[in-house]
Amino acid sequence: MKQSQLFGKTTYEIPKDEQSMNAQLLIRGGFVDKSMAGVYTYLPLGKRVLAKIENIIREEMDAIGGQEILMPALQNKKDWQTTGRWDIDVMMKVKTFFDKEYGLGWTHEEVVTPLAKKYIRSYKDFPFYLYQIQTKFRSEKRAKSGILRGREFSMKDLYSFHTSEEDLNKFYDLAKDAYFKIFDRANIKNKTYLTYASGGDFSKYSHEFQTVSSAGEDIIYICEKCNIAINKEIVENNHPKCPKCGNENLKEDKAIETGNIFKLNTKFTQAFNFKFLDKKGKENLVLMGCYGIGPSRLMGTVVEIFNDKNGIIWPKSIAPYQVHLVCLGNDDNIIKEAEKIYNSLQKEKIEVLYDDRNESAGVKFKDSDLIGIPLRIVISKKTLEKDSVEVKRRSEDGFKIIKADKAINFIKMNQES
Amino acid sequence: MKQSQLFGKTTYEIPKDEQSMNAQLLIRGGFVDKSMAGVYTYLPLGKRVLAKIENIIREEMDAIGGQEILMPALQNKKDWQTTGRWDIDVMMKVKTFFDKEYGLGWTHEEVVTPLAKKYIRSYKDFPFYLYQIQTKFRSEKRAKSGILRGREFSMKDLYSFHTSEEDLNKFYDLAKDAYFKIFDRANIKNKTYLTYASGGDFSKYSHEFQTVSSAGEDIIYICEKCNIAINKEIVENNHPKCPKCGNENLKEDKAIETGNIFKLNTKFTQAFNFKFLDKKGKENLVLMGCYGIGPSRLMGTVVEIFNDKNGIIWPKSIAPYQVHLVCLGNDDNIIKEAEKIYNSLQKEKIEVLYDDRNESAGVKFKDSDLIGIPLRIVISKKTLEKDSVEVKRRSEDGFKIIKADKAINFIKMNQES
Repeated sequence: MKQSQLFGKTTYEIPKDEQSMNAQLLIRGGFVDKSMAGVYTYLPLGKRVLAKIENIIREEMDAIGGQEILMPALQNKKDWQTTGRWDIDVMMKVKTFFDKEYGLGWTHEEVVTPLAKKYIRSYKDFPFYLYQIQTKFRSEKRAKSGILRGREFSMKDLYSFHTSEEDLNKFYDLAKDAYFKIFDRANIKNKTYLTYASGGDFSKYSHEFQTVSSAGEDIIYICEKCNIAINKEIVENNHPKCPKCGNENLKEDKAIETGNIFKLNTKFTQAFNFKFLDKKGKENLVLMGCYGIGPSRLMGTVVEIFNDKNGIIWPKSIAPYQVHLVCLGNDDNIIKEAEKIYNSLQKEKIEVLYDDRNESAGVKFKDSDLIGIPLRIVISKKTLEKDSVEVKRRSEDGFKIIKADKAINFIKMNQES
Repeated sequence: MKQSQLFGKTTYEIPKDEQSMNAQLLIRGGFVDKSMAGVYTYLPLGKRVLAKIENIIREEMDAIGGQEILMPALQNKKDWQTTGRWDIDVMMKVKTFFDKEYGLGWTHEEVVTPLAKKYIRSYKDFPFYLYQIQTKFRSEKRAKSGILRGREFSMKDLYSFHTSEEDLNKFYDLAKDAYFKIFDRANIKNKTYLTYASGGDFSKYSHEFQTVSSAGEDIIYICEKCNIAINKEIVENNHPKCPKCGNENLKEDKAIETGNIFKLNTKFTQAFNFKFLDKKGKENLVLMGCYGIGPSRLMGTVVEIFNDKNGIIWPKSIAPYQVHLVCLGNDDNIIKEAEKIYNSLQKEKIEVLYDDRNESAGVKFKDSDLIGIPLRIVISKKTLEKDSVEVKRRSEDGFKIIKADKAINFIKMNQES
């Protein structure tokens, strides 16, 4: 992509109406635009990042047998009345001109449970796992955390269905592992803790995935022995204690809830009377689990963690482009060399943003740092005199000079590492 | 994918509450589930088809320089009041518990115009083309056309921005060609006509793409000389006449509006006062075009066109799987041979649905026809005795017997043709 044609501009001004680092950096880098409080447009750069995160999640859900579906945002009032959740604050309510009323989905148990009930009857059809990557809506009164907590946001929600607790537990552990694979691929695994949290109505504990960050809205206590944490909300009598080893020497930290998994057991299947016939022909309630992770929140989390004073530092796996090719100067031979490398990279299917704009070196470097593409290649009069290019990683300070004809190979090897 | 594990079941009953052929066939084939009137869940098979259509559209929009973004569904009341469209019937209105009011987007001029205005100032930044593939909402009073006209549906909307009418016209023609490429790839080009329709407030004509089908809600008059059509809505004095050659011998037909393109000119840029600085530093209003195509409607159209009394007949390009591998009988050696072919196809990255269920040949064939995957491979005791498999195209009556060890090559060649 030629940067001269890219829609969305970097800006050095810090947006006054954004308190959160993620929104500030994403707006300044030209990744998102604030449409209203808590409502963002993803610009071309931001859409690319979001799509990559969604694909990582999709791959890991497919790998554990998840089947992708797409449920509607418009929700049936009757079904939410069945579970007694119609009047929960977070639900946005929709009206049509002919006075039909809907909810806007902030979660999908009220859709997926009746759906599964329609199609499934026998124990032979279990277990199965349905997921979607879909837009959700929440009536958040204060929307001040950027894309970490929007009123409209992207969500992956998976629902699992089982005939026994054992089977639910088995899949629950599998999903846990899949979540850590996702965090690993997004480069935040070493800051993310499986965290014991309130089980709500369903079970003693649920599990959150909490990623340590000063932007976090939660307080967690980390047991460094067990590599797990507990959420402050379940700490009794001000004495945090590791639920696994009993250790009381825990580290307090702020963290972002980047995922959660819940054993719903029979809460929703009871409400909808969703039963299966077992081997003996007897009816039993189906057991369920639910597993949420927000692609847009994950994107915001990565930005909160990987940045410096100059901008974002994207991990390779979710960077909008792998290479930022920066051309300095307007001499024909410089531009010719830059175009040559640009074309070679495209031929090799290496994603490249090519800064072909008529701007100063200062502006180009500043923008490059703001956008945060992992590898920067600079071509200038100076480098060309030595038949070379300058190579710099966004995450490191120094740069290297390498021969121009070795550049493509260098970049290819960098991609594989 | 093993069919025994696939979520979503075929049914031979015609759903009583669906009048449209597309909804009947899609529900019977296990592609979609009706959540409410005009609101559908895409089951795994349906989600795959929808994703393929969206990818075809994405590729063709990228090919003409479209940049993908993602705008929100939640719409700013103020911006819709600016254009005087806040109180149009089709807009669903949303309320939060703290009494904030939003619209739900059924089109995005009111978002994209202020967005572009924020980022663009100089003639040097033109032209540019922004598109999204996003969920839209419409307050349709009667929802009886299945996924052809839902209350919630998938939409690709592209908006183009120009400094001159010439430039707008140039891109408009490019977009027209891209649309025909999409229809070609979905196999409905030969039934789709560029159709002159009302230009609304903006210009004399707009263009629709109308695909001839008895399920269509529009009446068009086709000029077979020019290969174009006119929509009945613009016919004057009951005398349809080709706007290109004057021919009055036109063919009347019912058609589905599968796409539309509009020259918006300055309608929205005037409302939002979106101007650019020209070379002389003078301010001028920006010109716009908009270009819509609904992936879910396209899916419904294909179903309306490609079916027989036994079910859907998917074109290869958007079929949920390329091969339906049907195993008949429970003998170990039959299953072993079926698994071998299944594994080979997966290794070759040929999408295969493997009917491994314990069902009769009758049920399996009936289901296979309902689902409508282009190529069916049958393995049975009878074929195995001749070291063969039976190969049948869904679109043809006869079948072929080919040697089992040639099956993979045959399928690979079929994929390429």
